[in-house]
Amino acid sequence: MSEEYTKKLMSSVDIKARIKASEKLVKAFERVVKSVLSAEEPKLIIPKRTLSNTIYDKERGLLLLGPSTFERSFLDVRESRKFMQTLLMAKIIYEALANNEYPTIRDLFYRGKHSIRYRGLKGRVEEENTWDEQKESDAVLRDIEVYVNLLREEMLILSKEKGKVVGDMRIKSGDDVIDLSKMGHGAYSIEPTPDLIEFIDVNADFVLVVEKDAVFQQLHRAGFWKKYRAILITSAGQPDRATRRFLRRLNEELKLPVYILTDADPYGWYIYSVFKIGSITLSYESERLATPKAKFLGVSMTDIFGDSKKKPYLSEAERRNFIIKAKKADIKRAQELLNYEWFKTEKWIKEVNIFLNKQSKLEIEALTGKGLYFLMDTYIPTKIQTQDFIE
Amino acid sequence: MSEEYTKKLMSSVDIKARIKASEKLVKAFERVVKSVLSAEEPKLIIPKRTLSNTIYDKERGLLLLGPSTFERSFLDVRESRKFMQTLLMAKIIYEALANNEYPTIRDLFYRGKHSIRYRGLKGRVEEENTWDEQKESDAVLRDIEVYVNLLREEMLILSKEKGKVVGDMRIKSGDDVIDLSKMGHGAYSIEPTPDLIEFIDVNADFVLVVEKDAVFQQLHRAGFWKKYRAILITSAGQPDRATRRFLRRLNEELKLPVYILTDADPYGWYIYSVFKIGSITLSYESERLATPKAKFLGVSMTDIFGDSKKKPYLSEAERRNFIIKAKKADIKRAQELLNYEWFKTEKWIKEVNIFLNKQSKLEIEALTGKGLYFLMDTYIPTKIQTQDFIE
Repeated sequence: MSEEYTKKLMSSVDIKARIKASEKLVKAFERVVKSVLSAEEPKLIIPKRTLSNTIYDKERGLLLLGPSTFERSFLDVRESRKFMQTLLMAKIIYEALANNEYPTIRDLFYRGKHSIRYRGLKGRVEEENTWDEQKESDAVLRDIEVYVNLLREEMLILSKEKGKVVGDMRIKSGDDVIDLSKMGHGAYSIEPTPDLIEFIDVNADFVLVVEKDAVFQQLHRAGFWKKYRAILITSAGQPDRATRRFLRRLNEELKLPVYILTDADPYGWYIYSVFKIGSITLSYESERLATPKAKFLGVSMTDIFGDSKKKPYLSEAERRNFIIKAKKADIKRAQELLNYEWFKTEKWIKEVNIFLNKQSKLEIEALTGKGLYFLMDTYIPTKIQTQDFIE
Repeated sequence: MSEEYTKKLMSSVDIKARIKASEKLVKAFERVVKSVLSAEEPKLIIPKRTLSNTIYDKERGLLLLGPSTFERSFLDVRESRKFMQTLLMAKIIYEALANNEYPTIRDLFYRGKHSIRYRGLKGRVEEENTWDEQKESDAVLRDIEVYVNLLREEMLILSKEKGKVVGDMRIKSGDDVIDLSKMGHGAYSIEPTPDLIEFIDVNADFVLVVEKDAVFQQLHRAGFWKKYRAILITSAGQPDRATRRFLRRLNEELKLPVYILTDADPYGWYIYSVFKIGSITLSYESERLATPKAKFLGVSMTDIFGDSKKKPYLSEAERRNFIIKAKKADIKRAQELLNYEWFKTEKWIKEVNIFLNKQSKLEIEALTGKGLYFLMDTYIPTKIQTQDFIE
């Protein structure tokens, strides 16, 4: 295939992104090459991705990497393997950028996986694998992300995607303009590199994210987003990076309020937490992927059981039929959540305590079981209008 | 919300579908009502969904329900609970159709779940649940599907969807015309009711289904479908009903050849088998959802190891780096597959035997690891051109 033709098939957006990423990558690793050429010890100074170097910035409501760094030097026996792995990974990514490829993290693992044969100190031929498991190649990829200050998506590394969106807005993706209000009964699958999307115009008042794809299908089909001027999104479970970044951009750039609707259980709360704060083990992404202003719309424990100020949305008979008994793992998870800084607010402590007390959970589908139009025309609008959400 | 406004938000396609399904449902259950009114014993005669009533139609290459039926009568003590459940489910579905709802199977479970109180023979008040688990409500839903001869999708019962498509074709879904060649870097998410899609025009020579979403993303991004005039689909793992039905329609109505690309392992073969033949436990859907002419493009064992007539696509070093050792469960699954009628062909027996002999499996990502353009411009086109696939 001619180089010319390959490029013609690619979007102009991608071509620009490749050049930008290649330049940053080259610049970051230039120092290493220079030190080798001038016979100095080659080393990398990389921000630490440890829990102790993860800071919760209360002001911005974000998890951030702290200022600590570590040195990875070639001549340190404990570090030389990792040093080599890092350079190998940088080389593979650079080649992929140059060759117009779109690797995945699984690809990168395969691309680098081989055995190096060398003659040991005692003269025997020995073998060492570059890496054996994807865990290892993923770890050095993350090191490169923080070292170069480029997210993998910016290096055109792709991944599987589950996020979907519909609503009255137009976007430009690649070289196409897409009208997200003209998707019929289907939906638009969010691309793996949402930073390359251009927002053209939007005619909506808020964003509703539904954890469950099936509930998204129902609300979409019944015209929820048309009636309530919403952008409707599903993460189809635990959100992937692209859905998180897309949501953040809707909130930050278009100033749209974001409401998140999950099952009433610790797993649902955790989904909300990942959208809002980011995942603890990958705090370096949070600055770009988290949406600190996202609000937890429900289903909340007070929606189920009511409180002194609020009538519950379920009758006693409905509670009897719909509620699921919490499992031990749910209880444990709930107790863990209370340790997180961002769950230490009055409303969350109350929410978790009702859960621990009642040992009960509820699926969103219990509300659509009560009637799709109950969810669409009573529950969601009332919750938003009365500001009955947790921030 | 006014009835008028609700309908305005719904697609005209859905309104028609509702009327059709309601009429069929009423007609099918009219007999039961009549027998009650004329003091006869109410009963349902339902096609058997058992394995012994599942027939593999070699001619058409499909699993079909055989002619056996069973009687479910109200006055038979062993059957009366199920009889009541069936009527309860029919009532819920009818109401959902009438009220412009779009339930999911989980909803249907919740909608019907309650306790019936009655005074027992000894005068004591007793309680019985309509159903306790979704397994029970799903089973009666399936009975209704075969009894009324309506798939759940035709009754506007929705579900979560994973299938995506891009390619040079226009479809009408709901009231929108969608150009599947203008999805940018994203994709079109297939709707839960693909029978309601209208194909407007298509400019493609074949359909390629990729098991893995991440590989779909890569091929899409690199312009595979533009260059090779393909409709590109991913099932994102085990295919759901909508993806299967959509594929079947592309094959049957548009006469497009269908090639399926999965990992080289028994799990990948099973994905192919579900697309081609259907799932054994749900043979009644196969007549509508299966694509008997679908071809298994790869990755095949002879692609990895070669044979007397074919050079392998992997070098010895690549095999060493890429191959994954088969697990016990893989071996067991492979041996089971050989029991299925449609795997008892010369090519499949050879394929499975190489696997059992080498105890090796391979992911598609190993091929993109070798280079995305190797997969796109060498592997896939060569396999199609030389007709190196399994039917």
